[in-house]
Formats: sequence, C-alpha cells, structure tokens
Amino acid sequence: MTYNLEQALEILERTPNTLSSLLSGLSDEWVYANEGDDTWSAFDIVGHLIHGEKTDWIIRTKIVLSHAESKTFKTFDRFAQFENSKGKTLQQLLEEFSELRLENLKTLKELQITESQFNMKAIHPELGKVTLKELLATWVTHDLGHIAQIAHVMAKQYKDEVGSWKAYITILSK
Amino acid sequence: MTYNLEQALEILERTPNTLSSLLSGLSDEWVYANEGDDTWSAFDIVGHLIHGEKTDWIIRTKIVLSHAESKTFKTFDRFAQFENSKGKTLQQLLEEFSELRLENLKTLKELQITESQFNMKAIHPELGKVTLKELLATWVTHDLGHIAQIAHVMAKQYKDEVGSWKAYITILSK
Repeated sequence: MTYNLEQALEILERTPNTLSSLLSGLSDEWVYANEGDDTWSAFDIVGHLIHGEKTDWIIRTKIVLSHAESKTFKTFDRFAQFENSKGKTLQQLLEEFSELRLENLKTLKELQITESQFNMKAIHPELGKVTLKELLATWVTHDLGHIAQIAHVMAKQYKDEVGSWKAYITILSK
Repeated sequence: MTYNLEQALEILERTPNTLSSLLSGLSDEWVYANEGDDTWSAFDIVGHLIHGEKTDWIIRTKIVLSHAESKTFKTFDRFAQFENSKGKTLQQLLEEFSELRLENLKTLKELQITESQFNMKAIHPELGKVTLKELLATWVTHDLGHIAQIAHVMAKQYKDEVGSWKAYITILSK
C-alpha cells in the first residue's frame, strides 16, 4: 500500500476504541503485567501513546510544514510515561488518549495537507532527513505496533499455562 | 499468572469488540492485505477464529469432560476459513464471530468447571496428553496472538512508507 491520508485516518481514528475494547475493565494482573526488566505493561504502553499525542506526531507535523529555518525535531522521550502516568488509573489514561487523539486528528484534517507538502522534509535527531509522509505513515504503524505489543505482553502471562500448545502459539516464542 | 477462569473470561469476552473496533468499516486494502504467499489477511484471521468457535474450544472442552473411552481430539483445520469465508463480507464474519463467542462463553460458564476438572486430560492428535486447563489457557493466548497478528499484517502494508523510521518500529522487522 502507498500512504494516503484517508486510509491512514481509518487506523488512527480506530485506535482509541480498539484499546478501550481490549483493556477497559480488565483486572490489574492483566493491566500491569510486563515480561520482566525493561519491558512494558499495557498500562505503560497506553501512557507512551499519550506522550506521542502530546509531543510527537502533530508537533512534528507542524514543524515540517513551518517556515522555520531549522526544522530539527526534539528527541522523543520513550520513558516519559513512567513519570507521567503515576497516580492515574488505566481508565483515566484510556480517556486521556482518546481525547488527545480526537483533538489531534481534528488538527490534522484542518491542516489540509497537499500532495506536495507530503514530500516536505525535516531533520530527525538520529535518523536525519525525513519527509512528512514518512512521519504520518509511522504514526499509523506505531499505533498498530503497540496494539500488537499489548496483545503480546498479555498473551505471555499464560506462557506456562498452555502446556505443550506453546509450540503452536507462535506469539509465545517471540 | 496462573490460569483462572474469571481472568480468562475477561479476555475471551472482549475479543469480539476489540476486533470490531479495529476492523469494522476499514477499506478493503486494509482488510484483504496479506504479506505474500501463505500469509493471512485480517479477513482470513477472523474466519479462522470463527472456525475455532465452531470446531475447537468448546467442542474439545466437552470431550475432556465427557466419559468417552477415547478422548482424542479431531485435528483442527487451519485452512477451513479459505472455503468457509467465501462470499461473505468482513462485517458478516465479525458478527458471526461475535455471536458464536457469546454462545460459547455462555456454555463455558454453564459447565461450572471445578478445580479438579481443570486437570482432566484428553489426547491431542499431535501433542499427546493435554489438560483442560491448558486447552482453556490456549484459547486466551490464541485470541491475543491473532489480535497481534492482525495489527502486524496491517502495519506491514506501510513498511516502505515509513522511510528510515523502519529501524524504530520493531513490528516492521518481524
């Protein structure tokens, strides 16, 4: 598939409901379970998605489209959620994510990005030159990647419970 | 986590809504895209989940709990969906899955399985002796594995669109 805004929006606008359907009301053992040191729980991942809405996708989109002389993105903080989500419930995070996403997609549509603007460039602090189209396509794959990651970390909690079926459930060997 | 029926039900009863939230109304390119020969699209995966509801989980649960002399499961047909989903829309499949799952969870609860019954055994045609607990835990991980697989196959459609971000979106390298 080649990137197009309408099809990208189909995914981006579904993610809040997908996460709520998957996670809302689950018992704490599912929500806070990770796979050991330096791995993320469902709770951590939703917090990470919130930080993306606040500091990454739309902020960077505006930088690319701006007339600024230096269009260098700030480094994204991959660990901000550990501080920012403190004291919040998963339900609060799901609602916060949902509101931020709605607002950001509204902004994205209002920008009315043209075909030629999709090729505008900015500088990523580690990756170097990137285009707006690449940024916006990454937003989509980032959502889908983290949905998969949440399903993965939850599945792993039963890795010893499935007995010899472990051989058939490929997600348990990943 | 050790298997327990209530926590398992939390996942099993959420899967239909999770799939509908993720997939309902998506354009065909997302729904029918796979990753090439012998890989499955979102459409194929929902069909596969339907076949599980019809021929696997509850059927096998009843075999384990039965007083039959030979408690050997029939081989599960991993490719049945290619025939069975023909002519159906994704929306029809999502609704069919949702109805079957609701019915099967009703049956599961009505069976009022006791702790000692969870250890009852049957014979899997390839894996040999398995317990009811292992079967029911596999049902949960099977759901989560296929949710991850759907997110994965859709993310992959943009693997060339994200440019150098490919290095950061780990799902694209899997």
